[in-house]
Parts: sequence; structure tokens; C-alpha cells
Amino acid sequence: MARFLKKRDQETGRSPGSLIFVGQQKTDTPRLRLIDYDQEMLKDDFIDSLDTLSACTDSQSTSWLNIDGLHVPDLMSQVGNLFDLSSLILEDIVNTGQRPKLEEFPDALFVTLKMLSLDEELGRINAEQLSAVLTGNCLITFQEKPGDVFDPVRERLRRQSGRLRRLGADYLLYTLLDCVFENYLKVVEILGERIEEFDEEVLGNPTPDLLEEINLYRREMAYIRKAVRPAREIILKLAKTENEIITPQIAPFIRDLHDMAEQVVDAVDIYREMLNDHLNSYNMAVTNRLNDVMKFLTVFATIFIPLSFLAGVYGMNFEIMPELHYRNGYFILLGIMGTVAAVMLAYFKKRKWI
Amino acid sequence: MARFLKKRDQETGRSPGSLIFVGQQKTDTPRLRLIDYDQEMLKDDFIDSLDTLSACTDSQSTSWLNIDGLHVPDLMSQVGNLFDLSSLILEDIVNTGQRPKLEEFPDALFVTLKMLSLDEELGRINAEQLSAVLTGNCLITFQEKPGDVFDPVRERLRRQSGRLRRLGADYLLYTLLDCVFENYLKVVEILGERIEEFDEEVLGNPTPDLLEEINLYRREMAYIRKAVRPAREIILKLAKTENEIITPQIAPFIRDLHDMAEQVVDAVDIYREMLNDHLNSYNMAVTNRLNDVMKFLTVFATIFIPLSFLAGVYGMNFEIMPELHYRNGYFILLGIMGTVAAVMLAYFKKRKWI
Amino acid sequence: MARFLKKRDQETGRSPGSLIFVGQQKTDTPRLRLIDYDQEMLKDDFIDSLDTLSACTDSQSTSWLNIDGLHVPDLMSQVGNLFDLSSLILEDIVNTGQRPKLEEFPDALFVTLKMLSLDEELGRINAEQLSAVLTGNCLITFQEKPGDVFDPVRERLRRQSGRLRRLGADYLLYTLLDCVFENYLKVVEILGERIEEFDEEVLGNPTPDLLEEINLYRREMAYIRKAVRPAREIILKLAKTENEIITPQIAPFIRDLHDMAEQVVDAVDIYREMLNDHLNSYNMAVTNRLNDVMKFLTVFATIFIPLSFLAGVYGMNFEIMPELHYRNGYFILLGIMGTVAAVMLAYFKKRKWI
Amino acid sequence: MARFLKKRDQETGRSPGSLIFVGQQKTDTPRLRLIDYDQEMLKDDFIDSLDTLSACTDSQSTSWLNIDGLHVPDLMSQVGNLFDLSSLILEDIVNTGQRPKLEEFPDALFVTLKMLSLDEELGRINAEQLSAVLTGNCLITFQEKPGDVFDPVRERLRRQSGRLRRLGADYLLYTLLDCVFENYLKVVEILGERIEEFDEEVLGNPTPDLLEEINLYRREMAYIRKAVRPAREIILKLAKTENEIITPQIAPFIRDLHDMAEQVVDAVDIYREMLNDHLNSYNMAVTNRLNDVMKFLTVFATIFIPLSFLAGVYGMNFEIMPELHYRNGYFILLGIMGTVAAVMLAYFKKRKWI
Amino acid sequence: MARFLKKRDQETGRSPGSLIFVGQQKTDTPRLRLIDYDQEMLKDDFIDSLDTLSACTDSQSTSWLNIDGLHVPDLMSQVGNLFDLSSLILEDIVNTGQRPKLEEFPDALFVTLKMLSLDEELGRINAEQLSAVLTGNCLITFQEKPGDVFDPVRERLRRQSGRLRRLGADYLLYTLLDCVFENYLKVVEILGERIEEFDEEVLGNPTPDLLEEINLYRREMAYIRKAVRPAREIILKLAKTENEIITPQIAPFIRDLHDMAEQVVDAVDIYREMLNDHLNSYNMAVTNRLNDVMKFLTVFATIFIPLSFLAGVYGMNFEIMPELHYRNGYFILLGIMGTVAAVMLAYFKKRKWI
Repeated sequence: MARFLKKRDQETGRSPGSLIFVGQQKTDTPRLRLIDYDQEMLKDDFIDSLDTLSACTDSQSTSWLNIDGLHVPDLMSQVGNLFDLSSLILEDIVNTGQRPKLEEFPDALFVTLKMLSLDEELGRINAEQLSAVLTGNCLITFQEKPGDVFDPVRERLRRQSGRLRRLGADYLLYTLLDCVFENYLKVVEILGERIEEFDEEVLGNPTPDLLEEINLYRREMAYIRKAVRPAREIILKLAKTENEIITPQIAPFIRDLHDMAEQVVDAVDIYREMLNDHLNSYNMAVTNRLNDVMKFLTVFATIFIPLSFLAGVYGMNFEIMPELHYRNGYFILLGIMGTVAAVMLAYFKKRKWI
Repeated sequence: MARFLKKRDQETGRSPGSLIFVGQQKTDTPRLRLIDYDQEMLKDDFIDSLDTLSACTDSQSTSWLNIDGLHVPDLMSQVGNLFDLSSLILEDIVNTGQRPKLEEFPDALFVTLKMLSLDEELGRINAEQLSAVLTGNCLITFQEKPGDVFDPVRERLRRQSGRLRRLGADYLLYTLLDCVFENYLKVVEILGERIEEFDEEVLGNPTPDLLEEINLYRREMAYIRKAVRPAREIILKLAKTENEIITPQIAPFIRDLHDMAEQVVDAVDIYREMLNDHLNSYNMAVTNRLNDVMKFLTVFATIFIPLSFLAGVYGMNFEIMPELHYRNGYFILLGIMGTVAAVMLAYFKKRKWI
Repeated sequence: MARFLKKRDQETGRSPGSLIFVGQQKTDTPRLRLIDYDQEMLKDDFIDSLDTLSACTDSQSTSWLNIDGLHVPDLMSQVGNLFDLSSLILEDIVNTGQRPKLEEFPDALFVTLKMLSLDEELGRINAEQLSAVLTGNCLITFQEKPGDVFDPVRERLRRQSGRLRRLGADYLLYTLLDCVFENYLKVVEILGERIEEFDEEVLGNPTPDLLEEINLYRREMAYIRKAVRPAREIILKLAKTENEIITPQIAPFIRDLHDMAEQVVDAVDIYREMLNDHLNSYNMAVTNRLNDVMKFLTVFATIFIPLSFLAGVYGMNFEIMPELHYRNGYFILLGIMGTVAAVMLAYFKKRKWI
Repeated sequence: MARFLKKRDQETGRSPGSLIFVGQQKTDTPRLRLIDYDQEMLKDDFIDSLDTLSACTDSQSTSWLNIDGLHVPDLMSQVGNLFDLSSLILEDIVNTGQRPKLEEFPDALFVTLKMLSLDEELGRINAEQLSAVLTGNCLITFQEKPGDVFDPVRERLRRQSGRLRRLGADYLLYTLLDCVFENYLKVVEILGERIEEFDEEVLGNPTPDLLEEINLYRREMAYIRKAVRPAREIILKLAKTENEIITPQIAPFIRDLHDMAEQVVDAVDIYREMLNDHLNSYNMAVTNRLNDVMKFLTVFATIFIPLSFLAGVYGMNFEIMPELHYRNGYFILLGIMGTVAAVMLAYFKKRKWI
Repeated sequence: MARFLKKRDQETGRSPGSLIFVGQQKTDTPRLRLIDYDQEMLKDDFIDSLDTLSACTDSQSTSWLNIDGLHVPDLMSQVGNLFDLSSLILEDIVNTGQRPKLEEFPDALFVTLKMLSLDEELGRINAEQLSAVLTGNCLITFQEKPGDVFDPVRERLRRQSGRLRRLGADYLLYTLLDCVFENYLKVVEILGERIEEFDEEVLGNPTPDLLEEINLYRREMAYIRKAVRPAREIILKLAKTENEIITPQIAPFIRDLHDMAEQVVDAVDIYREMLNDHLNSYNMAVTNRLNDVMKFLTVFATIFIPLSFLAGVYGMNFEIMPELHYRNGYFILLGIMGTVAAVMLAYFKKRKWI
């Protein structure tokens, strides 16, 4: 299946805003988890229906609703109604092939980007789409399946003294984005460490397996880049936003995030270049190795050519061939042959051909 | 025939605005279809003459006039007169080699771009020029031949409840552009799925057919890119327009379209890069394969060289060659030959040459 | 002679504004042609001296003075005085190695760019410099030699009803620029049609002649690009000018010209890329072809190696070699040889080496 | 260990602003050195605790506190409290994998960048992170370990008459940055001198050692580039700052610094290109050298082929072979062989194959 | 010695503004030449001390002080004091590795750039640094050694009627810059003419000498580019300056200069690309040539292989080999050998292998 462009439904021209899930279904039943907190209290529940949520937007506490599983249209449209999300946003959420982007509305902010994880066995990067809607003191996040990189955030939420409990939903959004970017760095770093090792292997031991690995890493780097570059644009846009939903005290954190985004993109670019260099070095190493073999064999063969010729000459059946009747003819010839071989060897040595 | 630059009429310097059709005639008689609708009613007719149209601009309903076939100058100038189109626009419409572009006028908007379709048999992309003029509550579209990707739109028009019936001609234009871009995505995706498969074939089974296929896809990707990049510019321009003909409620849809345009261009670029990688990998695979053959054959030949030399030596006719008279001379020599071959084989094995 | 940078006079440091002709003299005597027209009348004369021109700037009619041949300093300075052109402009006009550019003055506009023509025999592009000064209702054009692409314009001037007769000198300038760009498109298209054909030839029949042709086209495309890219900048500048000498009614035409300029530059870039691809494909095709030959020959030689060895063995002169005395020894050996050859052939076939 | 992306702590999602040292610990105990000066006096002490510092911000003199060693969280947070640094800045200081950047605050300026040094033995560039906080008349600098390029600055501080003593902490910051950039230039220059030498070696004596050296230099240049490009951005930002902490009299010095930054980046880019050229030349030289060997050997072998064939013919045992019984048959044949060899040699010479 | 980055003094961290000469000393004693002129008079003297200069800034005439030789710190600081130049400017003047740049001051303008000259014997470009300070009606120029491209300017100064005598020191500066850029064009053109010739040589006669020449030209083009690109930026900055020291009447001349700068940079880029193409073509030509040789030799060898095998067969010593006793066995075999050779030759001819 194409990884770089997700399959859309084949029927072009459907009404924009139709909630048809695009992607692989990765979980059975959607799971909803509501964390409601302010500096005083923290409630953390898995909820079954959205009915209990109605109070959420009214209260003064900050609410974080996380939904794992996007393939149930009913649920999605319910969420849409509850939080007054436009149909276009809902469509972007359920289409897991969506390009990372940020959209601003007068009283809401919509972000969608990819979370990357490394399947260590296959050495492949998996991407899961994370969408987040920030509206008032509510943050709603959408993931394709349970399991994410946000456990440390939940841990920190439990600590009453932390900044996270003090500041609002915009800081929570920042914290989640920070996690996502930290994770980008981690994934790139794990690949990068291996990539930097290639340097020596490529010159010392260029096996076809190594070549395949290099190509794999190049593909994965291209895949990461596809997720990371638009994510950087998002942060840039976020840093420039004048939307009041982002309070001024968040600004320095966003700037920090932007540095991290630059760093990820820089690193990806450097590693891509490095992999291209490795590919070239690999080619060169393989060619040189083959050339050495061919040169050796050719030199070896060349030494025997005049010797075989001499043997051929004295294998001729002419009636009159005086050398054949010399007493030591045979031994003299063997001596000549040895001398020719030695001279040739010396010459090749001198020319550094062997 | 050149696909990447359409043949103009040879006579340079003709008056700008002359309505001479440039391109291949793809249909016999132009076909006109007028869909007239508002929230209450829908009329959908194939019409023969433009006379019935005069009422169109006056009524409050939204009208969509679609014209298939651009090669009849009379018809085109009639349309031009009726809707008050400048001669330059008409010229752009009939020149099917026109670069995709958007032009704004105080009370009208002119868009021309390419619809792509995949000729599955030839594996070639075909491009058909779509031009659209949006003026008041009328949308006039021009296509080179009958058949398009807009059937779902017509279907949705028939449903009274849809947003399409509620909103005006600008939303209709958006819907058509949306179809065109969805179709870009679909075409790129179909090619992309095949391209991603190349990865393994190229290393496992690099046949000349595969090479040809890779080159075909590269050409087609270049062709798509030529259509898609200026189309993205159009959407960008449309998103920034301050023309009142585009009502503010359309803005979020245009933004959505812009994301899609970015995604298409991104995907095309990624696949182009991938194809270049495939080409390199193909070359490498072919070279490696050949090198393996040559190495094997050379090693094989090399083993026989000293053996043949020995045979040559004992084929000489010297009178005095003691070994020839040894009782087991022949068998000893055969043994020596076998030993030499075995030693060489072992040496080559150790050096990993075979 | 260097085509890509024209020879300047060797004496660096001459006074700026000296009227020394730079380039190859392409005509004997300069030829002056004055077309004077308004909606009512049209006068078209070859004139000998500039004296008759003095009335030109005063009258209400539009005047087009065309000068073929730039190498007579006296004439040039006369023209300069008559139309009040600065010495820098005159210098640019006579220096045929001038980079295409547009210069604006309060009451005048100066444009210089290249007209391209295809020498079909040599397959080479020739460039001729066209300079134009637009001042009031006068347009003065300068060409290196008689013969240009403007005959259709003159033809249209003769038709009283045309737009050309109605609008002023700025529209005339636009018309000429339009001709020049149409001609760019035509030249690129002629080359492009041939370039697109290379696709198949390169894989099917990669002869050295084809290689030379590809290289020729690459050089010519670079040459065209050198003329076309700054020409596009000119049009862009023209589209943005606020100079009153360009009347507002010309604006849409200039915009159209800009599209054409973009199209030419796009096409040149695409064809350059295509030629690079062809070059790579050519190399690959040649290499593959050679490799096939070498592989065939090597396989052929390899089959004879063990056979010759066997013949060598039984050509030895050992006293005791039992096989030599077998009744059917010779025929058995021939059989063995045939078997060895057949087995090897089968093995090579199986491995797809032949 | 990955050099191009420093290892972060594995636990994603930690609270931003946690002071966990990221990097290799390069010193045992942090060392604090306080230089306090104005035009009249200079105090230079290694201090043990930060308590003596409290007076620093109040006095009129300029203070420079340098801290070597970043791995003691307590010390860092003490410094943070004392100078009122935000936790984000402290985090950037202790994370030695930080991307070079400049951050402005109403009353402070934060800069972090890399100091490069050349490990002459390994031929590797080492990077040490330098962070500096400029706040009022205090400059606090943070380094990973003792030893830096600032000794000449300290020397100049001792001279009472110098500009350094006259101007404030912003000039001191400039002086330090100047040292860092001078040092960039020096490092690039040392590598560059060697790189320019490659030109001849690569064509004259392309050994594998040279190849490894070229690759080493490419890697190091990439490493330098990673430090230097964002450093240039810092200077650009500094030149544009409107922060009052940078007094106007520093502006021309910053501009000078910017020129130097441009020069470093230019030089790095030129040397990178040069190294790529060397790599290509190396490949070409190696290939040509091998090809010459192979051609020589092939020509050598080819000359013996017809001679061996002739010997083979006259080694046949046909009953009737008249030449065998010619008196001088053997000698005639030897003559023919010599002639054939001579003719072939002459032909190959003429074709310039040997 | 490194050409692309000049050696700085090793002591990093010296006070900015120290007047230590950086570069190769190219002359013995500095030479000062003062040209003082207005429309009426012209004085041109070599002067020994700077004392006579004091009157210069006061008088109404325009003064041009040229200093050849930058290595005497005393002289430089004297000049600095006399004309009130900041120490940073003086430092830039004596550092001949300075990047070309323009600096503006309220009442002065500082320009430094490279003059290029072609050492025709070595085929190498030499760069000499030219610095100029324009202050009031004085222009002071600094060169590394006597001898420059300004003799025509001095010549024109002698002519009373010229524009140069009429306009002020800013026009003089323009004239000198014009000379420098004319000279760039000339140098590029001389190299360019040779480069365009490579086209045919590379395909027709690819000798190692040609390769070395191509590489030499690439290096020189990189060297020119390093001088020319920042010089273009200078002119651009100069065209945009609002400094009153540049009088408005100079503006069109600066614009002209800018065109020339663009042209130089364009030409350098085109020639660089061309040289890269030549390098590729060279490689291809060499490879093709070698391949032809190898193919010929392999085909030649292949023809003898079956013939030698046949000779080997009939050299065997089996007791019973009927053919050996045929009357015409030998001649029949010779005939068969000839036939085999002819058939093979015909086959190879048909396949176009020879």
C-alpha cells in the first residue's frame, strides 16, 4: 500500500465535509478519556458517551478530551456538534492522509500533525495522525489508536504544583506539541546514530545488506521529512498568530518549540545528505573492490600468456627445430620461462599493479 | 507530437485575441448544457443555441453553462458577446496549450487549468483544458470534449438539501475546482502506488522493461507537475483575492483547497525524487549483476590458465624431458593439476571472490 | 568566437556612452523605415536622412521608426540628438552583447532584448538584438540587420479597422514584444518536438550522432535561456510600471504577455531537464549495450576454456597415458567435450547470462 | 556516538525548563571566574560561591562572570535566580545540543553558539557550547570546560587604555563573539589550506588514504557548517536588534562581525564544493588508472593470441603437413611470428592504444 | 598557500582595528599619487608625504589620492587621521583577504573589492584588493601594488572637455568601478572563449591535458565568482543608497553598472555549468574510447578461440584419430578454420560489434 499518499475514497466529487474515514482502521471501539483539572483538583475518567461533556465548556476548569479511534462517523459528528466544529475540520480529522496544518478561527485553533514512532523490528517509521482542537478552556485531541507519547504529560498533570496545572488549555496544547517534537528528535536521533556508523562500514565492508539498509534509511528519512517540514510551518504560524486563544505567556514556549522544529529539520537534512554520501561511497567501494579483483586476475593471466606461447612453440612438429635436440634444451627453456615470469612480476610490482 | 508545448499557429504576429483553436480537435459538434438552479428548483438541459441564455444573467437563480468543444469560432465569439468576455480571455480559452492561470476582473473571474486523466492502457496521463468564467450568478465552463469528473457534482446538485443548492455560483466553482484537485490526488496516488512498488523490483529483478517503466513514470510525473504547480498558484491567488465575486463564506473552502494543492505538489515532488532514486538503484543493480557474472567467469578462466600451461609444457617435443618417461608421470601431473585447481579455488573462496 | 559573451572593445576604461559598435556587422548600410499612422491614414516610407523626422514628435499621429544596422556612429548620435536619448542608452543600443533590460525615464521607456531565429541547417539558434525606445507617440526600434518577425504587424497596420490603428505607440510596442515572445515559443517548440522524439531513439538506437545532437540541443537551450529569462523580468517590470507612457488600457495585454513569458521559461526548463535525462539514458543505453557484448563474448570464451584444456592434456607426450591407446579414446573425448559445452551452455542459460 | 544530534534524555515529555545536563561531562567541578572592571580598575578572581556576586548588578562597573562546567543543577539554578533568568534559558544553557540562537528580552540578551577547535591529531573538529547572557552591565558566559579562545581578550582587559575598558558589557560581548568568529575563520583556513592541496594529489597520486582524508574533510565541513550557519543568523539578528541593551556605538562592530560571518559561510560553501570536485576527480583518476592497466594488459595478451594459434597449428599431428618438412620451416615461422607481432604493435601504437 | 581564504594573523582576539597587514607584500615602498582637478585645471603628482594633502579637503577641486602598497602601518594611520577614517575601515583596507563590501557613513562611503587580472602564462587569475574611500570631494584609493586598469581614466582626466572633469568625485568613483567591472567582463570573456572551444575538443580529442585544463578553468571560475558575486551586491546597495554623497546625476550610471554586474555573474554561472558539462562529456568520451578499444580486442581474441581449440584437438596424441590420416586433412582443417573465422567476423559485423 502506498505510504506516501493515503488512499482516498475513489469517488471524486463527494460533498466536502463528508465524514468518511480515510486510512487503516487501527482500533476497534473509539475510547474517550476526559481529564478535567484546575490548580485545585484533577478528574481523569474514561467516558462512554459525550453527554457528560456538556458541562465542560461552561466550567472554569481546563478540560482535555482525548479520543482514540476516528472511524465511527456518528461519534465524530456528535463531537462536531458539541464543540461547534465546522464540517471541514471534521473531514480533516478523519482523513488520516491529511497534510499537517494549522487553522485559526476567531474562537478556536485547529492543529493536525503526525506522531512518529519507530517500529524497531522492521526499522520502519510509523506515523499516526494527531489532531487537536483548542477552543476556550477545552482541548480535544484525536488519535487513530490508543497509546501515545503523552504519558509523561499525564504524570505531570497529577503533580499539583506544576506549571501545567496553573496555566490553561493553550499551555496544555503547547506541552503536547512539545512532546511530539521531542519525539521527532528522538526518532531522528536513533536513526542518526546508526547512520553515522555507516561511515566506516561503507568503506570497510560494503555488503549488499548494508546497501539495502542505506536505502531503507533514505526512504525513512524522506518519510520523516514529509511529516516534519509542514510541522515546522505550523509552529512558525503559531509563533506569529495574533489569535487571543494563545495567551502571551505561552509565547516564549512557542519560540522554544520553533528552535526544536528547526533543529529537527536541520538534522533530517544533514542525515539525508550523509546517506547520499554513503550511497556514493558504497558504490565507489564496491567498484574499487571489483576492480582490484579484476586487476589481480588479469595480471595473473597475463604472466602465463608468454609462457604458454613458448610451450606452444616447442610443441610444434617441425622436422628441423635445433633447440629440441639440445641436451639441456628443456631445462634451459624452463629457466627462460621462470625468468620471463620473474621479470614480468617485477615490472608489475614496480608499476604497482599488484 | 510535442506534448509539453502545444503547437501554435505558425503565423507569428497575428492580432492578439484571434479565436483560432490551438490543439487537437477532440469532438465533432460542440455540446452545450445549461443547469439552472436555486434552492427551490433545478433545470438541466442540453441546448442548441445560445438564444435561450439571455435570460440567465437576469434571473436570481444560479446558472452553470458547460460547453464541450472549443473549435467553432462562431460559437465562441457568440459566448464572448453574450457574457461580455474580453477577446484575450476567449483566446486563452481556445488555446488549449494555455498555462494554468487565474485572472480577475472587476465583475468576473477567469480560471483555466488542466484536468488530468490516466489512460490505463498506455500508462499515459492525458490532459484536458478546463476554463471557467465566473460572472455574477453565472458560471460558464469550457472543456475540449464531452466527459469529465463532474458527474458527482451534478448528482449532488439534484439533491435539494445540499449546501451546493443553497450557496451561489462561487461555491459551484469551488466544487468544480475541488473535483479537479481530488482527481489530481487520485491520479498521483495511482502512479504513486506503482512507484512505491518499484523499490523492491529494482533491487530484486532489474529488467529493461522496468527501466522503461521507470522512465515512463518520470516523464508522466514531469507532465503532471507542469499542470499542477501553476494550478497551486491559482488557488493561492484565489485565497488572497479581494474580489467581491468570491463571497466570504467560501474562504474556508478555498483554504482547504489550498492544502490539497500543497499535498499534490508535495507528493509529486516526493515521487519524482523516489523515481530518481530508483533509476540510480536500477543502474547499480544492473552493474552489480554484470560485475558478478564477469567476476565469476574471470575466476573460472583463471583457474584453467596454469593447468593449460602445464599441459602445454608436457606437450613440448624436447628430446630430453625426464618427466615424460616417469612411470606415473601422467598421473602425478594430473594430481598436481588437481591440487593447483583446489588451492586456487580455496584462495578465491577465502578472498570472497566466488 | 564566443557566443555566450560578446567581445567588447579591448580598451577598458573608455568613457561611458561612447558609441562603438560591439558585435558582428551584419548589414552594409543602415536602412531606415518610417511608418506614420493614425486611425485615418498610414504612411510607410524608407527614408534616407533623419531630417524629415523632426515633424514626427509634434504631429498627433503615431510614428514607428525602424533602423536596421547599428554600426554607423554618426547616424546613431543623430538619432540620439533628435529624440533626446541619453548617451548610456545609445551605448546599450550599439553594444549587441547587452543583457536584455528595461529602463524607465520620466517621458520615455527603453527596452532591449534578443530576437531568436533558428538556423535550420546548422540547427543553431541565432540571436539578434532588438532595442526599442518609446517616447511620446513615437516608437524607435533598432535591429542589427534587415529582416524580422514583424511583417504580420505591418500587415495588420495596413488594415484600417484593427485595434493597432486605434491605439497608440505603447500598443505598438506591446504588439512587437508579443511577436518576439510568440517567436520564442515557436523556436522552443520546434526544438522541443525534436527533443521529445529523443526519448525513444536514446533507448532504441544510441548512436554517437544522437549524443552530439543531444549536446547541441542542450547548448542551444542554454543559449535560449540566457535570452529568455531576463526578457521575462522585463515583462514583469513592465507589468508593474507606473510610468504614464504605458496607458492603462494596455495593462491586460501586458499581463497576457507575462503568461507567455512564464510559459516559455517553463518550457525551456522542462526541456533542459529532459535533455539531461536523455543524456543519462544515453549513457546507460551505451553502457548496457557494451556490457551485453562483453558478457556474450566472455561467455563464449569461457565455454572453450575447459575444452582447450582437455585438448592440451591429450596433446602431452608422456610415455604412459592409457587413454591415448583406448580404441575410441578420441571419440569418447569428443563426446565429453560436447557434454561439457552443453552443460555449461545450459548453466549459463539458466542463470540468464546468455 | 552521534555527533550531529546530541542525545537527549530518553524521557520525552519532561517539564520544559528542567535543568538536566545534556552532553558529555567534560570537567569535574565547575569553575567560576569573575572579572570586574571599569576604566579605572580591574578585579580578576576565581570565586567559590555566588554570594559575592550580589553586589555586581548594582555597581557601575562592568562584570564578566565566566562559568566552566554546566553539569551541576544547583549551581545553574542559583545563577538563574541571581540574574533572574527564565527556566527556558537555563535549560538551553545546560543542553549542549542546543542549536545556536539569539533571544531577546526587554532587559537581557541571550546568545548560545558553538566554539570550534581542531583536534590536530585526529583531524576532527570539536565543538564546545558557549552561552552568554547580557543583562545590564553584567555578562555571564557559560562554557562546558575550562580553556577557551578568550585569553587575548583578558590580556586586552588588563591594558587600561584600550577601548575594551572604556565601553560597556555589550562591547565585551561583541569582543567575545569576534573571537569566536575569528576562530571559525582560523579553523576553516587550516582545513582549507589542506583542501586546496588535494587538487594536485588527487590527479597525481590517488591513494585510498587520500580518499579517506577527503571524506573526513567533507564530514568536518558539514559539521562546521552546522555550527556556522545559525551563528550567522544570530549576527544578522543582532545587527537588526532594536534592543536598548546594545548601545548604538556597537553597531559598526556588529556590522563588521556580520561581514566575517558571511566570509566564513562563503568559505565553507566553497570548500564543500571543492571537496565534491575532488571526490569526482579522485574517482576519475582511479578509473583512468585502472583502465590504463587493463588496456595495457589486454593489448599485451592480444599480441600473443595469433602467435599461440600459429604454434598450435604446427603442433598438430596430421600426417601430411608440408610446411613441417621445409628445411627452414621452423625459422620461417618464427620470422612470421615476429612480423605479426611487429605489425600488431605498430597498429596499436598508431591507434594510440599503447 | 590557500588562495580562497587569506591567512589571518594567528593571534585570535586582537583588538579590532589593529593595522596589521594581511596578505603577501607585493611592493617595496608605498607610492602616493595625487590628482587634483576641476574643469579648469589638472595637477598630477607623485607625492612623498601626506603633509601637502591638508589643503585638499578644503579646496573646491576634486582630489584623487591613490596609494599603492598597504604594508606600512604608519602611513595607513596617518591617512586615517587625515581623512578621519574609523579604525575598522583602516583594518579592512590592510586586510587583503577582506570580502568585497560597501559601507556607508553620514559623510563618507567605503568600498572594497577585487581587481582581477589574468596571468596568461599560468592561466591563473590574480586578485588585487582595491579599496576606495569617498569623502566630500576627495576619493582615496588603496591598491596592493603599482599597476592597475585605470590608465584610460587618467587619460580621460587629461581631456578638459570630458564629463569626468565636469562632474565630481562620485563620478570618478563610478568611473573606477566601471573599469573594474569592464575588466571582470574582459577576464571572463577571455576564459569564456577558450571554454566554448572545449565543446569540440572534448568529444574529438579528450586528452588528460584537456582534463587538467577544464579543471583549471573550473577552479578559476570559482575564484572569479567569489570576487564577483559580492561585488554585484555592492553595486545593488550603491543603487539603492540614499546617501547624499552620491549625487542624483550619477544614478543612471550606477544602474548601468548594475546591468554589467548582472551580466558578469550570469556569464560566470553559464560558464561554470558549461565546464561541468564538459567534464561529464570528457568522462563519457574517455569511457567510450576505452570501451571501443576493449570491444575490438575482445572480438579479435574471440575469433581465435575456436581456431586454437581446433588446433589443440588435432595436436592430441590419440592412437586412433582418423582425420589425421586423411590426405587433405590438414588443408581441410585450414579451410574449416577460415570458414569459422569468416562466419564469426560476419556475425560480429552484422551485430555492429566491430
